[in-house]
Amino acid sequence: MGVVGGGQLARMMQQPAIALGVQLRLLADSPDDSAAQVIADTVIGDYRDLDTLRRFAQGCSVVTFDHEHVPSDHLRALVDDGVVVRPGPDALVFAQDKGLMRQRLASLGAPLPRWQPVSSVGDVRAFADECGYPLVLKATRGGYDGKGVWLVSNEHEAGEVLSHDQVPGFIAEELVEYTRELSAMVARSPSGQAVAYPVVETVQRDGICHEVYAPAPGIAEDHAVAAQQIALRIAGELDVIGVMAVELFDTVTGVLVNELAMRPHNSGHWGIDGAVTSQFENHLRAVLDLPLGDPSATAPCTVMVNLLGGDLDDLYRAYLHCMARDPSMKFHMYGKAVKPGRKVGHVTAVGADLSDLLERTRHAVAYLRGDIDE
Amino acid sequence: MGVVGGGQLARMMQQPAIALGVQLRLLADSPDDSAAQVIADTVIGDYRDLDTLRRFAQGCSVVTFDHEHVPSDHLRALVDDGVVVRPGPDALVFAQDKGLMRQRLASLGAPLPRWQPVSSVGDVRAFADECGYPLVLKATRGGYDGKGVWLVSNEHEAGEVLSHDQVPGFIAEELVEYTRELSAMVARSPSGQAVAYPVVETVQRDGICHEVYAPAPGIAEDHAVAAQQIALRIAGELDVIGVMAVELFDTVTGVLVNELAMRPHNSGHWGIDGAVTSQFENHLRAVLDLPLGDPSATAPCTVMVNLLGGDLDDLYRAYLHCMARDPSMKFHMYGKAVKPGRKVGHVTAVGADLSDLLERTRHAVAYLRGDIDE
Repeated sequence: MGVVGGGQLARMMQQPAIALGVQLRLLADSPDDSAAQVIADTVIGDYRDLDTLRRFAQGCSVVTFDHEHVPSDHLRALVDDGVVVRPGPDALVFAQDKGLMRQRLASLGAPLPRWQPVSSVGDVRAFADECGYPLVLKATRGGYDGKGVWLVSNEHEAGEVLSHDQVPGFIAEELVEYTRELSAMVARSPSGQAVAYPVVETVQRDGICHEVYAPAPGIAEDHAVAAQQIALRIAGELDVIGVMAVELFDTVTGVLVNELAMRPHNSGHWGIDGAVTSQFENHLRAVLDLPLGDPSATAPCTVMVNLLGGDLDDLYRAYLHCMARDPSMKFHMYGKAVKPGRKVGHVTAVGADLSDLLERTRHAVAYLRGDIDE
Repeated sequence: MGVVGGGQLARMMQQPAIALGVQLRLLADSPDDSAAQVIADTVIGDYRDLDTLRRFAQGCSVVTFDHEHVPSDHLRALVDDGVVVRPGPDALVFAQDKGLMRQRLASLGAPLPRWQPVSSVGDVRAFADECGYPLVLKATRGGYDGKGVWLVSNEHEAGEVLSHDQVPGFIAEELVEYTRELSAMVARSPSGQAVAYPVVETVQRDGICHEVYAPAPGIAEDHAVAAQQIALRIAGELDVIGVMAVELFDTVTGVLVNELAMRPHNSGHWGIDGAVTSQFENHLRAVLDLPLGDPSATAPCTVMVNLLGGDLDDLYRAYLHCMARDPSMKFHMYGKAVKPGRKVGHVTAVGADLSDLLERTRHAVAYLRGDIDE
């Protein structure tokens, strides 16, 4: 099974691959990449080069992804070569292009914030007449972790954003008054089997996921069911293969779809320690058309907190402290050098008492970052 | 961290190594070895060759093992070179030599079956005068999975066993009337921290572990505590670093020590899915002198059943069937070609109802072996 991209998502696929007896082949930029450190069959090369992709795919029974940046044309060329690519380019394009995604989801009747493709200040003005300022501008392609998303308060700011000449297109979106953000993760296999994970609450800062609570505490049952049904419907209609995360806004009147990710997603990391079958295992199972595993939580509550690079660049002593303080904390380190704001790991605690889990996970991350020293 | 030996134990160390951010370097016989398939930094070479071991150990902050077959003299030479070897040769020798182990445990006052070193039929006769036939003869070194153990009913059979000229020494042991076999797993770090796992019941056939129930169902509390205390005491007195399994006989009058293994052990595989911290993770933590993780079970009951090679040599279709039948079953495949009787994987089920878990795990293994087809 080929995996394009050497980040932490590919790294975390290797754990269930070892259990399931699945041999991974990795295409990474460098032997130091997070996943390249832990996968024996690693090819170093550039995923933007079609010949490199073709050579890499030879001998793989299926090719999947750590990220969504492989050009659609390259994926279509691989498919034309007879390579099995999952998810396929016709599905993946909806995770790659926010404009196409919203167009398609609107046609399916999925609940969305009001939105409009925009290419000029005049377009933004027309949209603002309807929805008001502040509003959100998004690059249709290439954004992640808050990059490619701008909150603008007036035409002048909108004009500055639209002047980014490396962005292929923009959409404008109303600023939704949400009570919290949710993520609905599903896995779907080529034979059409699909499973839905418990809907989780995600806490984002500056567009970057910081914390995940599984399941979303106190969520209205009808909102949770709606989120799962929307995710299952999208996966089916778009013929998604593998796992997909649907990020949603929870509002007083219901849920609205925000973004799609057609790969393992930060909002699903909790399941490595807190679900019977992790998103990584179900991604492998789905992509290989194996029967899917049980997505149920194993405990009443799981909290995952991301470790973003902070002041400490040598984690070792802090790591010792945190392990000694909390023997049941689960640590996940990605083998990446610490840079401020970079996702270098996450911690997870599983139990029954949300406030206890929050206190412990937040303390561990603050200590590992160097924000606190006691 | 260097690991000598490319079997499934080293393979299963890679899963927590990925999580903890520990970079493994493997010494394997062949690139096709179970662990070599999944560890990026693999050196191919013969662990019986001291120069190979020396080159392998360069740059490792610590060296540990997948098996106990590395010659003691080589380990001592590495230690003299300044290599950190854990567990060290002075501890490991007691797992390598059953005669030395019994001698040392007797001196510690650990409860043992009656035993005696023997080198002639006359020695066996003298021992049999005391304990009667049938009795057990064991090779002091080199045995595993039932190899190197013989049940003999008379002097003639004893003479045949003693004529094995490749065996460096023998002990005779009384045939214990036990109610069941137990295993007490502990982890111990260089700083002296130690944790004890729940005592499990193991079911052996022909000296090979078939099933493990965690915790041992209905075990008398005092027997379980005694088993844990014996294991912790042995680990402390012998200065064991890493995990150690103490295999015991449970009898109506108490527990008796049978064997020691100073490495992850088949009787601890249940904990990958059923404990907060698996034996593999605690082995890494201990060997690296990191604080140890919580060894508690996450559920009332976990059943692990080994998959020994059977009639089926292509597992794929059976694997599909078993995954579809039981979405919460955990599969562990070692990447080894199927040969009759060879350990090629295991399955684990976690829950509350022992009989349900037994039915499901036994069915899965019987199906994967080809013993049943429905």
